[in-house]
Amino acid sequence: MTIDRVAIIGLGLIGGSIGLAAGKMAPHIATTGWDADPDVRARAAERGLVGTICETASDAVANADFVVLCVPVGAMEEAARAISASLKPGAIVSDVGSSKASVAAALAKALPDATVIPAHPVAGTEKSGPEAGFAELFRHRWCIVTPPENAPKEAVADLAAFWESLGAKVEIMDAAHHDLVLAVTSHIPHLIAYTIVGTASDLEDVTRGEVIKYSAGGFRDFTRIAASNPVMWRDVFLSNRDAVLEVLGRFTEDLTALQRAIRNGDGDTLHDLFDRTRTIRRSIIEEGQDDARPDFGRSDH
Amino acid sequence: MTIDRVAIIGLGLIGGSIGLAAGKMAPHIATTGWDADPDVRARAAERGLVGTICETASDAVANADFVVLCVPVGAMEEAARAISASLKPGAIVSDVGSSKASVAAALAKALPDATVIPAHPVAGTEKSGPEAGFAELFRHRWCIVTPPENAPKEAVADLAAFWESLGAKVEIMDAAHHDLVLAVTSHIPHLIAYTIVGTASDLEDVTRGEVIKYSAGGFRDFTRIAASNPVMWRDVFLSNRDAVLEVLGRFTEDLTALQRAIRNGDGDTLHDLFDRTRTIRRSIIEEGQDDARPDFGRSDH
Ligand SMILES: NC(=O)c1ccc[n+]([C@@H]2O[C@H](COP(=O)([O-])OP(=O)(O)OC[C@H]3O[C@@H](n4cnc5c(N)ncnc54)[C@H](OP(=O)(O)O)[C@@H]3O)[C@@H](O)[C@H]2O)c1
Ligand SMILES: NC(=O)c1ccc[n+]([C@@H]2O[C@H](COP(=O)([O-])OP(=O)(O)OC[C@H]3O[C@@H](n4cnc5c(N)ncnc54)[C@H](OP(=O)(O)O)[C@@H]3O)[C@@H](O)[C@H]2O)c1
Repeated sequence: MTIDRVAIIGLGLIGGSIGLAAGKMAPHIATTGWDADPDVRARAAERGLVGTICETASDAVANADFVVLCVPVGAMEEAARAISASLKPGAIVSDVGSSKASVAAALAKALPDATVIPAHPVAGTEKSGPEAGFAELFRHRWCIVTPPENAPKEAVADLAAFWESLGAKVEIMDAAHHDLVLAVTSHIPHLIAYTIVGTASDLEDVTRGEVIKYSAGGFRDFTRIAASNPVMWRDVFLSNRDAVLEVLGRFTEDLTALQRAIRNGDGDTLHDLFDRTRTIRRSIIEEGQDDARPDFGRSDH
Repeated sequence: MTIDRVAIIGLGLIGGSIGLAAGKMAPHIATTGWDADPDVRARAAERGLVGTICETASDAVANADFVVLCVPVGAMEEAARAISASLKPGAIVSDVGSSKASVAAALAKALPDATVIPAHPVAGTEKSGPEAGFAELFRHRWCIVTPPENAPKEAVADLAAFWESLGAKVEIMDAAHHDLVLAVTSHIPHLIAYTIVGTASDLEDVTRGEVIKYSAGGFRDFTRIAASNPVMWRDVFLSNRDAVLEVLGRFTEDLTALQRAIRNGDGDTLHDLFDRTRTIRRSIIEEGQDDARPDFGRSDH
């Protein structure tokens, strides 16, 4: 079976981008969509995010051979329940949630008889909602697929082919390992960014106006990440607690060591680290995972 | 007096950008330049960073009515000593160092008889060296001027007018307050970025290859900052130790509180912070201090 009819549940940044990408890069696929919020459905219809916006989750999935849940991680179980009665036999159910072990458990519980294969496209922006999506979001980005042990090989291959048709590269991974890797490359960076932006807002001796005016020294980068969707990120930290706390512990140890180096005037320790971290940037650019231009090619000068 | 002849000592990102900006936006100004490194002087000449590249610091400053030191903070005193014998009477000496109280002390010591007015343009990229500069770097950015108590008002006004002629906006500030504000908006963000990139490289259970592949989830932003010049940043942390340690203490407290919220499954605390931090981003964009496009307008999709 190849995937011909796709139902998208949740029409925000990720759901909307899947709809737009399919429309542009895989136009043979018919797309339906539903969102719990009627206002989002109306705005999604206006932008043409999917071929048909449905009034109920059941209508959206009734004919689909592939259903992708694009709601916050904490709403996955509810979204799965809303479609359970109407799923076509043999349909593949997947999701895009940013943590995988907890979502896998929630979907297995809500859909015990369905073919469930969780996945996570590692792509996004700080924007959310039905206006935020764009067709190119997944291009050159990795989509991590985390099949349960009993997942049919053919269904995994179909899912991989679907993501590749949207421009993504696919990697198969164990859900627990995914959660550790993403704690490092995504969840802890977000937690740190939220924290420093909060710290900066609360200082007594530096005004908010000063923080904003002089943000070009580095802080503004963190404010972009810290402008991400609060509900989505709350759910990520609650659902990936163990891996997040583990990596956070390592980060805190390393930060304490640097604090000591600064207190002791130990310039060599600082220089050694600062020199070592440059090489990672180079590899990220060589592998096409970031814009190579200085300052991300910002156009505000 | 207005500034007509400018000597730039240190021809890397900031020195080179000052030369290019003056050439483009204030072409009546004659610029000379010198760098301790002969190779940098040759490359600076090739790019035409200043009107005349000199072979000694003395030659560069002999006729200048304004000298700007654009070397790492830890090299300011040495650079000041190299020009002290040849300064024209009445010349203004300034700098661009990222911390101000320690630089002010170093310059006052090395140049007891000169008119010294430290300053710091809050603008930069992760690149350094004579190839990195560009004429627009200071446009729409703030330059913080930190005059000592006895600084002649006229000289401060001349310095401010010079920076405005390069497209910058000028703010006068006390050096100690500058160091606290920049600890928040620049130094701690850099320290955190260096730390997390180091942490990610050292984990046993996540490979470097994985960190690079899945960096688009947030981590890649930190790698850009953590690719900044190691010598420059070592000097910043050593020279602004007290303010850095103070803000770092606050950050660590706040991070510990979030860690506790995650451990306890306290979603409300997480959501409240994540919601609050969005507004700062909005203000930064309204005030023209960042590119408003999602994902900084990255072009790598
Ligand atoms: N943003 C990223 O960078 C990114 C990257 C990769 C993966 N993800 C994952 O993608 C998923 C969606 O994120 P997003 O950024 O697309 O968020 P989004 O833009 O806020 O979209 C989510 C949509 O789902 C709707 N929704 C919430 N509960 C629902 C339910 N039970 N049934 C149907 N619709 C429901 C929301 O409506 P309301 O707003 O009215 O609640 C919203 O319209 C999350 O699991 C997230 O972890 C995000
Ligand atoms: N980069 C930023 O984002 C930024 C922003 C605002 C302010 N600043 C401040 O600007 C200053 C310069 O930074 P930058 O980014 O322009 O660094 P850069 O690109 O590395 O340039 C500094 C130049 O100064 C030369 N130099 C070192 N010691 C010298 C000495 N004693 N006499 C003459 N030349 C000497 C260096 O030569 P070698 O490389 O051979 O040592 C190098 O060519 C620093 O104080 C920094 O704190 C930087």
